[in-house]
This record gives sequence, C-alpha cells and structure tokens, in this order.
Amino acid sequence: MQAYKNRSYANRGATFEHLVDMANTKYRNAGVADIRKVPTPVQITKSKGRLIEGRKETAEWVDYAGVYKGRAIAFDAKETSKTSFPLDNLSGHQYRLLESWAEKDAVVFLLVSMKKFGEIYLLPFEVLQKAWEVAKNGGRKSIAWETFKNECIEVTSKDGYTVHYLDALEA
Amino acid sequence: MQAYKNRSYANRGATFEHLVDMANTKYRNAGVADIRKVPTPVQITKSKGRLIEGRKETAEWVDYAGVYKGRAIAFDAKETSKTSFPLDNLSGHQYRLLESWAEKDAVVFLLVSMKKFGEIYLLPFEVLQKAWEVAKNGGRKSIAWETFKNECIEVTSKDGYTVHYLDALEA
Repeated sequence: MQAYKNRSYANRGATFEHLVDMANTKYRNAGVADIRKVPTPVQITKSKGRLIEGRKETAEWVDYAGVYKGRAIAFDAKETSKTSFPLDNLSGHQYRLLESWAEKDAVVFLLVSMKKFGEIYLLPFEVLQKAWEVAKNGGRKSIAWETFKNECIEVTSKDGYTVHYLDALEA
Repeated sequence: MQAYKNRSYANRGATFEHLVDMANTKYRNAGVADIRKVPTPVQITKSKGRLIEGRKETAEWVDYAGVYKGRAIAFDAKETSKTSFPLDNLSGHQYRLLESWAEKDAVVFLLVSMKKFGEIYLLPFEVLQKAWEVAKNGGRKSIAWETFKNECIEVTSKDGYTVHYLDALEA
C-alpha cells in the first residue's frame, strides 16, 4: 500500500497504464521479458498514405501481451475508484481471450488499480474466473476488496520498478 | 510443393494472410493454440465515438502473436514473387521484436510464401538472424531459395489445415 502511495508522488499525473508501460520498458531493457501494449483495433474505411479514417472495432485483444521466460503472458490493466472491482469493466471478448490463453497454459491475470485504497493487485485468472461464473449465474457482479486482500497478490514498488508486477507473479 | 498448389485451387483468390488466419481459427477451435493477428497501430488524431481519424504508426509489433503449449509465439507472414526472399520485406522494428522474443525463449519465425515456386516455408529465427547479419555486414540482402530448401521447413496442407505451420514446427 505504501508503495503505490509513494509512487503517486513520484509520478504525479502518470496514468496507471503509463506506469505499466514504464515497467515494460524496464523489463525489456533488462532482458527479463518483452511485454507490449497491443494496438487498438481500427477498421480503416479510408486510407491516403499513412493518413486514415475508420472506426474502432470491438477489441479482440487484451491490453498487453508478450513473453516472460519463454511463456506467453497476457493481461489487462484496469483502474477503479470504487471499493470493489465491477466485472463489467472487462468485455466478454477480453474475458474469453484470457480464458483461452489460460487453457493453453499462458500466464494470465488482471492488474487492478484500486484508487480508493492506493493499492494495485495482480488478480490471477482463476480468481477472476470464479467471480465471472458467479456473476453469470446471477450472483454478485463485482469483486470485493476483501477478495483482493485475501486471494490476490499486491503489486509494490521494488528494485527501481514502480509497478513490479512480474515480482508479484513470483510470489 | 504439391500441397500449396492444391490449396491455391481450393482457395482461389484467398490471400496468404487469409490462409494463415484460417489456420489460426482452426487451431483455436481445436484448443491447440491461440494465435491472433495483431492490429495495425494507429495514432488517433480525432475521435468521435467509434469514428476516428488518425495516421498509421511504425509497426512495433509483428503480424501474429499468441500462445502454443504455454509458450509465447510470434511471427510475420510474408509473400514474395521473387526467386529469393528480400530482407527489406521485414522492417528493422519487426526484426528487433523477433530477436527480443527469441532471446526470451519464445517460438519465433517467419512464414514465407514463395509464389513462384508455389511453396510456403517456415523460416526459423536462427536462419533469419544469420542472413540478417550477413546483410548488415555488406553481404547478400536476400535469402536464396536453396537456403529455404536446405535449412527451412516446408509447410504443407495436412489434417484439414490448409497451412499447417504448427505441424512444421514439430518437424
């Protein structure tokens, strides 16, 4: 918790995604992992050289994908100012990609920034899946902060990384 | 060789990328792998709901990425009508992504369709790297068909897959 609070001072104004991008650059430079932001899909309707017009398409990808120690890795970075994480922050498409990659043994999770608590959590796919199934069957539509506290791994600043989420993976 | 010739009849007019997309859909449905086309990066300059204007950015990604048996996989699909594969078909950005992923133990290659011969090859990253270094040092700027014949794996139609490149990986 302290870590994120410190960080928000050190990187005033930096968005959560930007902090994740910074970690990714550092991981890549250190030769640890190569994880990149996946471009927003755009259906191009008009193209003149590099200039284009088009429309944003339904995301068939999650925010980040890459390689870590040979393994495929995929995750979404989400932010909420609520006291729980509303599952409708994640589209059905995104959930199904994560599910499909998890089935093929990729490293799959969400990074959730809970602004109200100044905390960031790595939410393993299995925990997300359990909550998703509950919601699908008419139950609770969000993941409580207590679940993050008890079943997820808090991501902290460490070794010069502002959001050292790969360290949380090893925990 | 026969395989691709047959295929070009069966899928008249289908572009090479489309054939790769078809294989990917089939791999995903069979639960074998989840490999997807990475969207073209667009820098959005104007946005009105889903409608956008922008410009295409330098590709920081390769064409395809995904997961196969837990491992990260990344490749580009290239087509040439020449009798050799010109290395300038691949941008420096794309090469460096492949190199970085290879260093982190991902499965990395090019799929090269040589239209003149009606053949498709899986070009392992190591073979590409050797040729890239030669070109960088002022040598030959393309990969000869003989190199494909001798050091690459031919991709054939098999088990209902038109371009069964994962099978070539196992060879």
